[in-house]
Amino acid sequence: MNKYFISLLEEETPKYIIITRHIKKLIDANKIEDGERLPSIRGLAEFLDVNNVTIVNAYKKLQSEGYAVQKIGSGTYAKRKDISKNFKKEYSEVLKKISSKALYEYIDFTGETPNNAFFDIGAFKNVINEVLDRDGAEALVYQEALGYEGLRESISEVFWANKVNSDDVLIVSGAQQGIDIVSKALINTNDSVIIERPTYSGALSVFKSRRADIFEVPMESGGVDVERFEKILKKNKIKCFYTMSYFQNPTGMSYTTEKKKQILRLAQIYDFYIIEDDYLSELIYDKDIEYRSFKSLDENDRVIYIKSFSKIFLPGIRIGYLISPIKFKDSIQNSKINTDISTSSLMQRALDLYIKQGFWKDYISNLNNLYKDRYLFTEKCLKEFLGKKVDFISPGGGLHFYLKIRDCIKVDSINLFRMAKNRNVLITPGTLFYKNPSDGRQYFKMGFSKTNENNIREGVEVLGHLME
Amino acid sequence: MNKYFISLLEEETPKYIIITRHIKKLIDANKIEDGERLPSIRGLAEFLDVNNVTIVNAYKKLQSEGYAVQKIGSGTYAKRKDISKNFKKEYSEVLKKISSKALYEYIDFTGETPNNAFFDIGAFKNVINEVLDRDGAEALVYQEALGYEGLRESISEVFWANKVNSDDVLIVSGAQQGIDIVSKALINTNDSVIIERPTYSGALSVFKSRRADIFEVPMESGGVDVERFEKILKKNKIKCFYTMSYFQNPTGMSYTTEKKKQILRLAQIYDFYIIEDDYLSELIYDKDIEYRSFKSLDENDRVIYIKSFSKIFLPGIRIGYLISPIKFKDSIQNSKINTDISTSSLMQRALDLYIKQGFWKDYISNLNNLYKDRYLFTEKCLKEFLGKKVDFISPGGGLHFYLKIRDCIKVDSINLFRMAKNRNVLITPGTLFYKNPSDGRQYFKMGFSKTNENNIREGVEVLGHLME
Repeated sequence: MNKYFISLLEEETPKYIIITRHIKKLIDANKIEDGERLPSIRGLAEFLDVNNVTIVNAYKKLQSEGYAVQKIGSGTYAKRKDISKNFKKEYSEVLKKISSKALYEYIDFTGETPNNAFFDIGAFKNVINEVLDRDGAEALVYQEALGYEGLRESISEVFWANKVNSDDVLIVSGAQQGIDIVSKALINTNDSVIIERPTYSGALSVFKSRRADIFEVPMESGGVDVERFEKILKKNKIKCFYTMSYFQNPTGMSYTTEKKKQILRLAQIYDFYIIEDDYLSELIYDKDIEYRSFKSLDENDRVIYIKSFSKIFLPGIRIGYLISPIKFKDSIQNSKINTDISTSSLMQRALDLYIKQGFWKDYISNLNNLYKDRYLFTEKCLKEFLGKKVDFISPGGGLHFYLKIRDCIKVDSINLFRMAKNRNVLITPGTLFYKNPSDGRQYFKMGFSKTNENNIREGVEVLGHLME
Repeated sequence: MNKYFISLLEEETPKYIIITRHIKKLIDANKIEDGERLPSIRGLAEFLDVNNVTIVNAYKKLQSEGYAVQKIGSGTYAKRKDISKNFKKEYSEVLKKISSKALYEYIDFTGETPNNAFFDIGAFKNVINEVLDRDGAEALVYQEALGYEGLRESISEVFWANKVNSDDVLIVSGAQQGIDIVSKALINTNDSVIIERPTYSGALSVFKSRRADIFEVPMESGGVDVERFEKILKKNKIKCFYTMSYFQNPTGMSYTTEKKKQILRLAQIYDFYIIEDDYLSELIYDKDIEYRSFKSLDENDRVIYIKSFSKIFLPGIRIGYLISPIKFKDSIQNSKINTDISTSSLMQRALDLYIKQGFWKDYISNLNNLYKDRYLFTEKCLKEFLGKKVDFISPGGGLHFYLKIRDCIKVDSINLFRMAKNRNVLITPGTLFYKNPSDGRQYFKMGFSKTNENNIREGVEVLGHLME
């Protein structure tokens, strides 16, 4: 009972609130363990010299805040809150609050997509008008199960040199939907899935929602640890492996061609499928990195290829596509229909024309020039101001760095996030990327796409101070 | 073994094909039951006086066509094909083939949405341009978790007279997505769901994909059979009830206010939630039908209200919204994020402006005038040409009729579909709307939105002839 010692002298705050706060702290600090029975109402009331009702109210409040559960006839039990779950909420609420206010007051390293300042809205407006003049209401009415034929043809021609048939392309509303509909088509309760550790939280959520058994394999420079990968395969029937082949989110690492081939071989031997989320391979700054997707190396129809146009292009456009093995073509297409029938028809037509008229190519080439400089600048700042406090690899492309706080620095990334936020700097703690969130407490992600050089330097300096 | 008697005398057709066909007929006619063991290869070969190899080939062919499964070491077993599953495929392939060719050669009664000829594309083009001039790239980049604030405010104001808070509105990519994300948030494997019999096939697919236990309650004039409804509630813990309150798809029936109140009471007593898919209530032609959604009558926060703009407005725009009970607000919002992050931002802004500038109201009022006439005309034709062959109720609104082929007419709706298709008339067989498809073999749906008066008369006459 000693740990319940508490001063009830605070003025004006009701006693039950003080007691609630105290118990919450004890639970957060693990001084009361998850599932531990809390003292009886009468017992604690006597011990603290308060009315029974005060304890009843405190326990009710704990319950309503998710810190306790009541079991009828048996008492009240402590419930440890899932830090990540709460933190995820805290994180998204912070971003929401800030983005609806004045984001420009902040140095925002949480961005995952290019800055819209680089986008020529005039050109896009023209293609939309061209589409509406050309197709009339059709552009807003017509729905094709696979997506707009013209866009599928452009994709086949421009991105796959016609090596992929346009009928094998399925238009989806962004990569997140691609992952969702593929999961619905392939994964049932208790099916097993391998993911990279860490990985994109949006994919993790989908697999959890399908109630899959999730195995993590550590991401290394060059790709996942293949030995550990195969160990899992030997013991478990795996349905699929979710991977980001270039500038993996969050580690920034890319697969070597050799590792891709190894995994494709394993897929054939152990009969599983590779879900390749190719989300940012357009932005390669390091000339030594060659672009070869899993899909392009796939000889046995083992790859479900997902490409988002939202990530690299315009998040609000919500368009992506996927290419499926023949085996799953029908079921994935049905899954798309059951998910939202089809993707916005006008946006598909506009994107098609944008690609056909060469704007896409120019835009990507501009982005490469702009972001290469910014990437190099960020790398320089990180070395200069954080060199002794964090470890990181240089991805050679993409829009972010993933940093490991050195053991000697006694601050975890959730705290760093909170402290930095108070200094108007926003980062993404690593905890969001792990099945077991606490695995990510030593890591954070720093995207440089939404800032500029001045802000990058300033933001990195702030982080440096906070880690002292 | 007697049922396997068969004439193998057909010339030129290989014997194993004849045997395969015969066994398929037996399985389809239920003379061989689902799961029944087929005769041993040797046994049947002796009985029919053919080589073993002939039977092996026949069984292989049955397997490849899904009419049999082989269990190793135990023989071959009959497998009854799911008629609907195959028919669903046939149906969608027919529509796909035709729509990519010359739909104008057909009299199309399968339409579920208004004719785009009634839509003023010029006005919509103007609002898109206004949005792009006003918001620039922002219109294509910015993503709000709940959807574009302006649109949510318009919805609150124009459709709910501010009785619903704009923060309680979640924008989704059409009603199908609404059903999907609600299911993901609420329904887990083996949770129980009540649906109307018959119901919208897209909803049925979603609930099946969530592996829910599905209970059907017959739809009657005025709403579902409440007695049977309550019987199910007494025996089973029901999570939710999916309903279309107006011009139910496919029956065309609407709920009386009294029945809605009864079901809301049951929801409170038996602790379940009502998913209200309000898909076409804008089109009420019968002045006696009053518009009161479940949501508007809901006093206990029991209704998840889903509204599609795609159905009544423009299918290709892929926008709808939902209003959730507070209890599920967070989980449904997360489910949306995990499904596709957000809905196309530009389309949301354009629709917002379209509503704000009054175009929406005008458009709906035009549709009502146009379709009321067409509805009355269709009703007249049905009475004139099919009066003795089918029974139907007049919905008093919406875009279709649901017809029951009388017992004296010896044609089922799948055959009618096939025969009509050969006469260039397209209908939707009832089998698509039932959990057990064969329950719908006496029914078909006739939408009149995509045709004109001449075609309606001609099409109905053709159907009349085919049912003779």
